[in-house]
Order: sequence, then C-alpha cells, then structure tokens
Amino acid sequence: MPQSRNAVVLLSGGIDSTTTLAIARAEGFTPHALTIRYGQRHVAEISAAERVARALGVADHVVLDLDLRTFGGSALTSDIPVPQGAPLSGGIPVTYVPARNTIFLSLALAWAEVLGSQDIFIGVNALDYSGYPDCRPEYIEAFQRMANLATRAGVEGAQHLEVHTPLISLTKRQIIERGRELGVDYGMTVSCYDPRSDGTACGACDACVLRLRGFAQAGMQDPIRYASPAPSASF
Amino acid sequence: MPQSRNAVVLLSGGIDSTTTLAIARAEGFTPHALTIRYGQRHVAEISAAERVARALGVADHVVLDLDLRTFGGSALTSDIPVPQGAPLSGGIPVTYVPARNTIFLSLALAWAEVLGSQDIFIGVNALDYSGYPDCRPEYIEAFQRMANLATRAGVEGAQHLEVHTPLISLTKRQIIERGRELGVDYGMTVSCYDPRSDGTACGACDACVLRLRGFAQAGMQDPIRYASPAPSASF
Repeated sequence: MPQSRNAVVLLSGGIDSTTTLAIARAEGFTPHALTIRYGQRHVAEISAAERVARALGVADHVVLDLDLRTFGGSALTSDIPVPQGAPLSGGIPVTYVPARNTIFLSLALAWAEVLGSQDIFIGVNALDYSGYPDCRPEYIEAFQRMANLATRAGVEGAQHLEVHTPLISLTKRQIIERGRELGVDYGMTVSCYDPRSDGTACGACDACVLRLRGFAQAGMQDPIRYASPAPSASF
Repeated sequence: MPQSRNAVVLLSGGIDSTTTLAIARAEGFTPHALTIRYGQRHVAEISAAERVARALGVADHVVLDLDLRTFGGSALTSDIPVPQGAPLSGGIPVTYVPARNTIFLSLALAWAEVLGSQDIFIGVNALDYSGYPDCRPEYIEAFQRMANLATRAGVEGAQHLEVHTPLISLTKRQIIERGRELGVDYGMTVSCYDPRSDGTACGACDACVLRLRGFAQAGMQDPIRYASPAPSASF
C-alpha cells in the first residue's frame, strides 16, 4: 500500500470521473474532489457528483461556480439543440464546450498547489471521446508541461506535477469493467446530456449511446433509468 | 493599418493590462475585454477595468465571477496579510495567486474559440514581475503550445492561436512611456493590493512600490491619489 498523498480529482458525476475517483483511491491517494457548476444543462450531474463523493469517500468536495454560458458556443451551455439519433458521426460535436478541460485542469492546478499536492486525476478518454480535442494524450502532456512551468514548483524545482489519466486508453466497456472490479455502483452516476424532467436519461444523445454500448459490451445491465420507449442496446 | 481582427484582452484595470489594451487597439485588433472577479481584496480593480474599457473602447467587456477564495493560499484572496514596507525581497511573494494566469488564459481561450479569434493579449511582465512563475516567457510559450492542442483549431488545423505579451520584456518605466505615447490616462487605473477605505492607494505594497518607481523613472507624476503621508518616490 503506497503512502497516502493528496490528489485533486475532477468529478462530474458521470461514469468516467467516478471510475477515476475509485482508481485514485485504490492507488492510495487521498482524494479532494472538484466539481465545476459551469452552467451545464444537465445540472443533475452536480447531485450525482455529491452522491459519488459521499459514497466513495473523499477528504473534501468543492463545487465551484463558473458560468461558462457567458461565452456561449456549446449545446451543453447555450440554446443550441443537443443532437439526437445521429451520434458519433465524426468531427467535433456541438456538445463540445470550448476549452472546458483546460479550464477545469487549471482550477485543479490551483487547488493542488494550495494543498501541496503533485497529483491531478481527470477521467479523459481518447477512444470513446466523442471527438473532443482536449481529451487527446498529446494535449494532456502539453498541459502537464505548462503546469510545471506555471507554479511555485516550476520555479523552486521541489515538485513535479502529474496529470493522471487512468482511462485514457480504455474503451467504455473496459472502464465499466474496471469500476465493477472496484465495487463502483453506477446507479449513482449521470451521463445524459439531455435528461427528461423526471430525471430519466434520454437514451439518444452521444453520452447515452456511449454509455449503453459500454454496458452492453460488458454484459451488464445499466442500473439507471431511461425514458421510455426503452432504448436499444444492440450496437 | 492592418485588417481588424477580434482579440481577447485580459483586463484587470491596472497599468499593465490597460497599456496592453491600448497596444492591442493600436495594432488594429478589435478588443473583447475580459475581467475576472476572483475574490480579490482589491475590488476597486473591477471598477477601474470598467472605466478603462469605456475610455479606450472595446467591442464588449465581460466581467466573469470565479471565486478563487474557495481554494485560499494567497494574500490577495485570503486572510494572509499583504506585506508592507519590505517589497521585492526575493522569492515568490504571498500575493501570488496559485495558477491565476493559467486560469485567466484558459478562460480567455474559451472566449477566443467562441469568437473565432486567434489572438489573446495578456499584460505579463518578466522584469518587474514580482517573482510570479506564471509571468515568464517559457510559461507563456508552453501555454500557447497547449492551447493549440486544446481547441478545435488544434484538430482542424485551421487556426493558430497566439498569446500576445507586448510588455513581457519592458520595464515598468518603459510600459508607462509606451502608454503615454498611446494617450493612456493612468488616472483611471488601480494597482494597489491593499487600498484604504477612501480609495487611496497604500503606497507601500509591492504593486504600489513598482508603480511609483516606474513613474519616477519615467519622470512623470502618478495621477492617482495615495494615502498620506505621501510615499517617497526616491528609489
């Protein structure tokens, strides 16, 4: 068992960040969970993040307000409709939020520096990544390099900050299987970009399609509820 | 006269960012000013930024709320006293806000992407920089490299984002002289980390000392008011 060290874990309340938090704990880190309330349509994410933080156990959980709707430009934060029924069709989708991971990692960097932590965890994924540029390994490497020049550590040479991306080369199926090994209850999580007013997932947006396909490929039933008619999980 | 292009200009309301905005305009850019209300003690900065944006002329001015007090760790956002009377004594000062420029540049990056802008201006300065790691040229270069991997432009290859730092190798004296050439009225600006309740600058914090020294070396009178007894400008 490695010595416990503080780590900042970005936690959205979805499958990927929840699994990432479970992995950080399993690796012996003391997690400090950071959730950003950025004006996303799917505010159910925030409640999910709070449930997950309580259930998995964290040293503390900060929910930070940052209204990215000010800038617009994404279906997740503005009035552009969330696409339905033609998912993963190539290119960068309209659900991409400009510079989101850069902003979130920058905020995690600030907290890590205050905590004296050298470790940030983010659940980005380069395979089932829906085409977002800020989920690619070369981006993460460039962020880490910049971060090591941005902080006291970069001047004083005392620390080396690492951005951990334990999911980056996993498929959604493998992520779910890893979470199952670690005892994660995915019934706590929320993925849908466009949930119904009763809280059920739409089953048709990119996030739902990726999620359902992952559970189907892992041979598991997704424990969350979907809007009827029930979506097909045969891909 | 170059063709007008959109640029995002980080504007704090101090001498450096005000001069940077004037330079962006002089270079033919259409400036979109971004000010972050991050929980700084010196909220007079925000009013100064609004005055400067109106006076110099911008396409729009966004004041974004982001409460960095959540993380603590700086004299500018927490209860650590602002040092007085022994400025610029070496090392990284307690007024350093963890990852501040990284966070601000990330927010500028998001807005630039929405605007379709390839240009961000920030008034960092590597000479009179008070020892902040995120004011060094190698940091700015690393941020720019990361930013070009973070965005649609990085995937689609259509754009190349540039972080402009027109002040990076200037002394405070040279910055003030450049602003004077461009007709900037520094009476609108605010620099003090610890202003008195009547709005006068303390004259003793690092920011005041740098400012007063810059005006003295430029052979100019600083047009703002200082708390009495009047500070010495003989450095």
